[in-house]
Amino acid sequence: MTAPLRIGLAGLGTVGTGVVRILQTHAGLVAARAGRPVEIVAVSARSRRRDRGVDLSAYGWEDDPVALAKRPDVDLVVEVMGGEDGPARATAQAALAGGKHFVTANKAMMARHGIALAGQAEAKSVALRFEAAVAGGIPVVKALTEGLAGNAIARVIGVLNGTCNYILTRMQAEDAPYAQVLEAAQRLGYAEADPSFDVGGIDAAQKLALLATIAFGAPVELESMTVEGIERVSLADIEHAAELGYRIKLLGVAETAGAAIEARMQPCLVPAGSPIGQLEGVTNMVILEGDFVGRIVLSGPGAGEGPTASAIVGDVIDIARGLVLPPFGQPAAGLVAAPRATAAAPAAYYLRFLLADAPGVLARVAAALGEADISINRMRQVEHDGPEAPVLIVTHHTERQPLDAALAVIAGLDVCREAPVAIRIEAL
Amino acid sequence: MTAPLRIGLAGLGTVGTGVVRILQTHAGLVAARAGRPVEIVAVSARSRRRDRGVDLSAYGWEDDPVALAKRPDVDLVVEVMGGEDGPARATAQAALAGGKHFVTANKAMMARHGIALAGQAEAKSVALRFEAAVAGGIPVVKALTEGLAGNAIARVIGVLNGTCNYILTRMQAEDAPYAQVLEAAQRLGYAEADPSFDVGGIDAAQKLALLATIAFGAPVELESMTVEGIERVSLADIEHAAELGYRIKLLGVAETAGAAIEARMQPCLVPAGSPIGQLEGVTNMVILEGDFVGRIVLSGPGAGEGPTASAIVGDVIDIARGLVLPPFGQPAAGLVAAPRATAAAPAAYYLRFLLADAPGVLARVAAALGEADISINRMRQVEHDGPEAPVLIVTHHTERQPLDAALAVIAGLDVCREAPVAIRIEAL
Repeated sequence: MTAPLRIGLAGLGTVGTGVVRILQTHAGLVAARAGRPVEIVAVSARSRRRDRGVDLSAYGWEDDPVALAKRPDVDLVVEVMGGEDGPARATAQAALAGGKHFVTANKAMMARHGIALAGQAEAKSVALRFEAAVAGGIPVVKALTEGLAGNAIARVIGVLNGTCNYILTRMQAEDAPYAQVLEAAQRLGYAEADPSFDVGGIDAAQKLALLATIAFGAPVELESMTVEGIERVSLADIEHAAELGYRIKLLGVAETAGAAIEARMQPCLVPAGSPIGQLEGVTNMVILEGDFVGRIVLSGPGAGEGPTASAIVGDVIDIARGLVLPPFGQPAAGLVAAPRATAAAPAAYYLRFLLADAPGVLARVAAALGEADISINRMRQVEHDGPEAPVLIVTHHTERQPLDAALAVIAGLDVCREAPVAIRIEAL
Repeated sequence: MTAPLRIGLAGLGTVGTGVVRILQTHAGLVAARAGRPVEIVAVSARSRRRDRGVDLSAYGWEDDPVALAKRPDVDLVVEVMGGEDGPARATAQAALAGGKHFVTANKAMMARHGIALAGQAEAKSVALRFEAAVAGGIPVVKALTEGLAGNAIARVIGVLNGTCNYILTRMQAEDAPYAQVLEAAQRLGYAEADPSFDVGGIDAAQKLALLATIAFGAPVELESMTVEGIERVSLADIEHAAELGYRIKLLGVAETAGAAIEARMQPCLVPAGSPIGQLEGVTNMVILEGDFVGRIVLSGPGAGEGPTASAIVGDVIDIARGLVLPPFGQPAAGLVAAPRATAAAPAAYYLRFLLADAPGVLARVAAALGEADISINRMRQVEHDGPEAPVLIVTHHTERQPLDAALAVIAGLDVCREAPVAIRIEAL
């Protein structure tokens, strides 16, 4: 085991540069821990000339990442280019077909093609690892696939997108509306120029899909999930939620309901004092619930050069040590499709209405809810100046379908001045 | 890899029974994840007749755990008997000498003999794993040894003893003194009949020593650590700390100071709003700080049948999958002794004095601190009825030695009515 593990690195953006930096800074430490030297032999990126602040002169260069993956002097390909298909997928397929290990940070590709790639890796008895694709530096794929492997997992909960958590945290702290905070986040580099992937919940949903697939031993596709972003979370709702003792978070929940699986990514109210309620800024948090272990909570930086590169190098060291296990914790062929739960598990809901301030109005809203068998836990009319009264309601547990029906009735009332808002409350 | 992994289980207390329960409940799940069946073939315990609520009839029986470890039909020995030496150590040595894998929950034995046992395991190329010895169900040994292996670790912080955290939490919640809460905890089974191992900080210190040894790649012995228990934490200090915005926790900190290592386990003040400040009851929490990953926080149940058995089965599945790595993350022979830092890193301190309520008294205390170059951040005389005034001081950063000298001076003043209290404040 003293032969070096030879790495081909595809992608030299922030994360790729971070991988170079770790392997250069900690060459001795990594070799001691891996039991053998870990060496980059060749790299590939779009531009050869760009100055990335690291010395690449000792490495071979390939313009084409697929050619990199096919090099006979490469044992393991690290892919940090991104993209669901295209070069990333071609590189993965070429590496695995050639019997090389493959480590990636690519959540989009793994969420879409992960099981097929896992089958390919298993057929060749090589490793395919993707710790960096979920929650950055937090070793959550490892915790779920390995540490908690003795448990049936009942639920996975996660705040998995740092950009969204940053925006929601700042909206509350600065009393500023969504658009304004997003713009500031873009200036600071916390949000992309095109933020739709993050703020639309897609990025977080891809990560949750990967965790759920491992947790439940069943493929969980993005298409089967409820996915809602934070674009429509209003400052008013953040503030009213806070008054009621809650925070609004983009929360992913994947859970079993009998033989079925439900996975959703959507803005939720969570208790302000809960660990997730207190999570600020770009930090990620994942809660894993197993039948024997109980509840494990992991948190840490969910993105960025150092954390993501740390996750990749952790995977690389595992492979250098000889660890080859099925990428999703059990053989890809054994990942049997489970039915999707048709409706979200019942929950309490936060409702906000803007109603004409006239006698009998509250009674009509309450009656519409009552007719749908939705009982009210708390109701509060907010102090106001104009002729329209903001009314907040926290319901008892209800299913979503009768709630939506009741909200449609209320929206049709002549006293209802705005489309009602309904946000799920997760008791954590 | 389809041959079953055959387990010999030494110890059938709470944790051993939990291991039986997981492997019986999840036989199919474990086999799918491990890639092969995992079967208990024989067990050993003190009493064969005791009813443990699980069916042991399919397993062989050995009165002597060493005989169990030597059985030719055993591939892996799980040791959950406990004890630093004696049968546990003899079982470990017999198992490893016979080329069998060894999984243990025994923090006392691992803290004392772990490196020698690791050397023995490495010589035979078998696995020695001890996830269950630290923080129960939280996969923290795995996170440190594997997930964060690409990082130089600068600091490990932990609340590692559930009994202590439970007692401190209840003292504050119930406004009750230490002795009364301890007694209640013993009745509820949260504290042992002889609690000294827990409340004296030894149990937590052993766990911290194991984490520090992995983190820094250097043996960290209990003897080199500052270890102080919670027996002398007074209700008054808990309440005054709360008024100042702090909580008192039994906190373990292991950190590097240049080439030296410092490890301490002692009651500390932590900010009430920090994750550790908010940790309630028997939950454990570990913070790992790496140079690339930043700060990772893990929390969960630190003890109990299910969580501890979950950790053991996680280790067993790793081994079934073929993972054999050096127990402390790098070869035992490479664990080079590092110097111990001679003094604790400077910190702010919480001080409490009971002083005669007379003119000029506060000035004399402040002067004594000033002469030792210790500057005062906050000072507060607590409302009081009698002739003695409780005085609280929060210092700026200072080393411990001049502080102790100043406190000795103050203790000698005729106006000082009680030995001064000094508790370190950790900024988390």
